Amino acid sequence: MVIAKARAVDGPDKLFRKAEIQRRDLDSHDVLIEIKYAGICHSDIHTAHGEWGGEVNYPLVPGHEIAGIVTDIGSEVTKYKVGERVGVGCMVDSCGECENCRQGEEQYCLEGNVPPTYAGVDKYGEPTQGGYSTHIVVTEDFVVSIPENISLDEAAPLLCAGITTYSPLNHWNAGPGKKVAVVGMGGLGHMAVKIAHAMGAEVTVLSQTLSKREDGLQFGANDYYATSDPATFDKLAGTFDLIINTVSAKIDMNAYLSLLTLDGTLVNVGAPPAEPLAVNVFSLIGHRRSFAGSMIGGIRETQEMLNFCAKHNIAPKIEIISADKIDEAYERVLASDVKYRFVIDVSTM
Amino acid sequence: MVIAKARAVDGPDKLFRKAEIQRRDLDSHDVLIEIKYAGICHSDIHTAHGEWGGEVNYPLVPGHEIAGIVTDIGSEVTKYKVGERVGVGCMVDSCGECENCRQGEEQYCLEGNVPPTYAGVDKYGEPTQGGYSTHIVVTEDFVVSIPENISLDEAAPLLCAGITTYSPLNHWNAGPGKKVAVVGMGGLGHMAVKIAHAMGAEVTVLSQTLSKREDGLQFGANDYYATSDPATFDKLAGTFDLIINTVSAKIDMNAYLSLLTLDGTLVNVGAPPAEPLAVNVFSLIGHRRSFAGSMIGGIRETQEMLNFCAKHNIAPKIEIISADKIDEAYERVLASDVKYRFVIDVSTM
Repeated sequence: MVIAKARAVDGPDKLFRKAEIQRRDLDSHDVLIEIKYAGICHSDIHTAHGEWGGEVNYPLVPGHEIAGIVTDIGSEVTKYKVGERVGVGCMVDSCGECENCRQGEEQYCLEGNVPPTYAGVDKYGEPTQGGYSTHIVVTEDFVVSIPENISLDEAAPLLCAGITTYSPLNHWNAGPGKKVAVVGMGGLGHMAVKIAHAMGAEVTVLSQTLSKREDGLQFGANDYYATSDPATFDKLAGTFDLIINTVSAKIDMNAYLSLLTLDGTLVNVGAPPAEPLAVNVFSLIGHRRSFAGSMIGGIRETQEMLNFCAKHNIAPKIEIISADKIDEAYERVLASDVKYRFVIDVSTM
Repeated sequence: MVIAKARAVDGPDKLFRKAEIQRRDLDSHDVLIEIKYAGICHSDIHTAHGEWGGEVNYPLVPGHEIAGIVTDIGSEVTKYKVGERVGVGCMVDSCGECENCRQGEEQYCLEGNVPPTYAGVDKYGEPTQGGYSTHIVVTEDFVVSIPENISLDEAAPLLCAGITTYSPLNHWNAGPGKKVAVVGMGGLGHMAVKIAHAMGAEVTVLSQTLSKREDGLQFGANDYYATSDPATFDKLAGTFDLIINTVSAKIDMNAYLSLLTLDGTLVNVGAPPAEPLAVNVFSLIGHRRSFAGSMIGGIRETQEMLNFCAKHNIAPKIEIISADKIDEAYERVLASDVKYRFVIDVSTM
């Protein structure tokens, strides 16, 4: 049994404190990872604050953007060796047997048996605790390999922000000849811009203001518009084949749907607090548009995304913080004051 | 100029009255059609009652499920001859030059220049008036040919109810190995069942009650469930690749979305009164589901649908009424008391 140092919250309105958590003894297919970096995702904040409905089992150690080094392996592990650079994303297991799991879409497990990396319950009946900690034990099938030319600090955000945007861009065929809009220029949005650009699509950012315009163009956007300007919606009506909405706040979905061309799809990857969005059916019917959702990506696709990012030299733009600054980072994320992902240096834990 | 006998309403709460309307002199590409039968579509009622927002130009002659005989043609008409059996659906023109029109998706004309068959304005600046009348003049490109083995009375509803369901079933690849649910067993729904079955899909009807179950199974449904029974939604969770929602009343969209499998799509073809529907983003994200809309179909696809119906011996189940019974028929449609489409015998006009 490994005792990991961690940072935990004890309730929806509590600050982070130092904690120690137990990581299980290695099962035959388990990998022990010494975590080097953990990204801070908006989902961490939603969950820590209890905003997604359902009961949260406090104390909670968030973190599902995990990069580190293998330091021990179970007796039957074949995929990883001690010393290898690895990552863990939003899920740590699945049923493995349903049709979706067999197709490599474990995040959509038909048994609903997908323990999230934190705030879930693993197959041993124990609560899962995430990456704001020095160590984690994960079954090898839910560990991915980090290519050599991606640094561990920059790799961390790819495990959620990267795959969450790569997967729908890949699934809905972003590429040459396609016009893709990215709504929101935060952690997910800036990755979506980089990935869609690398896929060959023509990329437009739709952000509240033009304050991050220079960055957006540097990340690969061809255009950048402020959604606070109503003229944006007139000008861009019927323009995009694909819109990736990374904003987890409630937005006027019909205004964004009106920007889709015939057969266009708006994909929500940000998950707003659990209130429904108002969708006008005429927004969809008028141009055979679709409003869709996508949730992270499967393990195989996560590895594919990491390899894609390595090949195209894509990395998130990050700000490294010490473990004492998590609360402050949360406040700054909520104030949209982050360029573009906070990553905790776990050596400061 | 032809003076047509017609039935018109003078306001949202008025009854139909006898009217005479002028049909324009034939332009070089126009076809004069002697209307034999006109179907009654729920859209007629929404429009006659002014329920879709926007101003309705009364007096209004509804009707966009039109079947009849060509009785005269313009000097340059090449597609039709006098005496031929033809149909007219929901639109009577389009810009013809935009990308969507050129692709045969005139209903999604990028210029928005698609005069509906009634309650619109044609290119001459005149209000369009529909099929509850003895004659209509339409440019040949918006006329379709009715195959010999479809009777004119049964052909009429195909021009809206048929194409409105055929098009999304075709676009989203209903066919062997696909599980398709049809929500609602009205005019559109019963056509969706017949067409999806003929395409080779496994078809399930989701209707408020089981009262039309025998008919549904006879039309080709494999299963039939009552949506008034909450157990239906538990039992069928995650089942369907495609759901065609033909209900134009407001329904609990999230309950229906939960019935979709991974990558499943729910397509709304019924257009509810102009209030938005509440969509829970988690309903979509959980299984990469899509909520889409589809509007009738293009002219080429309408002809394809008629040929498909002829080949597969598909016809709507209709109840023929005289022109004096339109108000009564409207009441019965609103009370869901129709099996499954009222068709006006225009000879009684």
